[in-house]
Amino acid sequence: MADVTRTGVSIEPELLKKFDRFIAKRGYKNRSEALRDLIRESLITEDIEQNRPVVATLSMIYDHHRPNLSNKLTEAQHHHHGNVLAATHVHLDDDNCLEVVIMKGRSGDVKHLADHMLSMRGVKHGKLVITSTGKNL
Amino acid sequence: MADVTRTGVSIEPELLKKFDRFIAKRGYKNRSEALRDLIRESLITEDIEQNRPVVATLSMIYDHHRPNLSNKLTEAQHHHHGNVLAATHVHLDDDNCLEVVIMKGRSGDVKHLADHMLSMRGVKHGKLVITSTGKNL
Amino acid sequence: MADVTRTGVSIEPELLKKFDRFIAKRGYKNRSEALRDLIRESLITEDIEQNRPVVATLSMIYDHHRPNLSNKLTEAQHHHHGNVLAATHVHLDDDNCLEVVIMKGRSGDVKHLADHMLSMRGVKHGKLVITSTGKNL
Amino acid sequence: MADVTRTGVSIEPELLKKFDRFIAKRGYKNRSEALRDLIRESLITEDIEQNRPVVATLSMIYDHHRPNLSNKLTEAQHHHHGNVLAATHVHLDDDNCLEVVIMKGRSGDVKHLADHMLSMRGVKHGKLVITSTGKNL
Repeated sequence: MADVTRTGVSIEPELLKKFDRFIAKRGYKNRSEALRDLIRESLITEDIEQNRPVVATLSMIYDHHRPNLSNKLTEAQHHHHGNVLAATHVHLDDDNCLEVVIMKGRSGDVKHLADHMLSMRGVKHGKLVITSTGKNL
Repeated sequence: MADVTRTGVSIEPELLKKFDRFIAKRGYKNRSEALRDLIRESLITEDIEQNRPVVATLSMIYDHHRPNLSNKLTEAQHHHHGNVLAATHVHLDDDNCLEVVIMKGRSGDVKHLADHMLSMRGVKHGKLVITSTGKNL
Repeated sequence: MADVTRTGVSIEPELLKKFDRFIAKRGYKNRSEALRDLIRESLITEDIEQNRPVVATLSMIYDHHRPNLSNKLTEAQHHHHGNVLAATHVHLDDDNCLEVVIMKGRSGDVKHLADHMLSMRGVKHGKLVITSTGKNL
Repeated sequence: MADVTRTGVSIEPELLKKFDRFIAKRGYKNRSEALRDLIRESLITEDIEQNRPVVATLSMIYDHHRPNLSNKLTEAQHHHHGNVLAATHVHLDDDNCLEVVIMKGRSGDVKHLADHMLSMRGVKHGKLVITSTGKNL
């Protein structure tokens, strides 16, 4: 782990008490860790807006009976193999698959690849989450 | 303003530097103020989930040529006058109005009233934001 | 109101049934109105991303005992009067005010003005919602 | 694939034209598919609010040098094995790992498990996305 410095924060006692209760419920062991998480979250929002390198996960539900869909999804991922790190496939029931595709790259590029797969016929639903590459975070 | 206490936060120097740059761009004069805003934001998310009293603003775009719509919106607001604090009306162009309705109450109640108005024919678009009553914040 | 055309949509019967139940709960009288709202919502997301003209509402909670804050907020709004259409002020309790500022302009400009006001000391919380100008919607 | 029925939608020609341009950019081949995706998205929002069974993906960035963290994450997942379907691990750089945990269960339960892992020290950032089980969708 990196070294840490200590900084002081001025805060109303009532607000601090509410925050301590809130983070205890979420499972945090200490206040610094919770505050660091809030800080990181705000920084990542900026990375996304500025089209910086990010890591992203696309979760898609699709119907595996749809002819050729599975092949088209695989092809799209290979075609953009520079942006695709890994994919995990889960069989949810007789009809439905979940495919989770892990991507890396500029936020604009990963959004475009996600849109391409989500727009395919038979892909019922999907969501993209964008997180950090972890560098300097 | 309430009294403040001072609490210490342990944080990696690199992360702190990035955060300071980020908040300077947003216009913050000091780090404590930015951290307090992050804390308040996280607490309000919980108020909403727990159906606690909140303040909310509904912004709707509608077509003022639609017969009777304006009356129906006004009636809905009067019918729930316990939840409606104020409404502001802006004439955007020949056809379009913006109506901003400020509400107060349990988050479930204000969501329900917002859904009711948003589903009316002629209301083209609308968004509800939920914020705090400001108490203990 | 504008003329309407009629277009056909192919849809699984089970999905249509769930959707009809869902929109009835939300208060919609007919399916076309609900679908038009979904379409408009998706278009507005694009207006925001593309920095097109939008209408926006900023809702801020602030402590009116904070010296000079009210003046600074008013000044900021006057300084950007080209982007500010109206402001509504609500007295929530002894300490807290809600100020709702209605803005118009490029999405980047209204975001910047909102950040400026939200970062002021004494502004406890705020949220910006961006909607459409209503044109061609 | 399931059978489909055909339903008519009344819509302003101008709005339809904008929507067609929008979905073409996103990669959709036809309008029905795009509308079905909007419908499914709105239904899933309700599944989450109503604490119904969902599928969820948690993406976490963490520092693999943090002593014992990896074990604690694995233990948490085993302890809730009824909710955890699979996990994928990606080595991002010398310090940072991405772990993607695929979960199934009531939306409240998967949120709770996600909070538990995200609050651990050394987990720098994480996001949970909730999607559908695909049933009746």
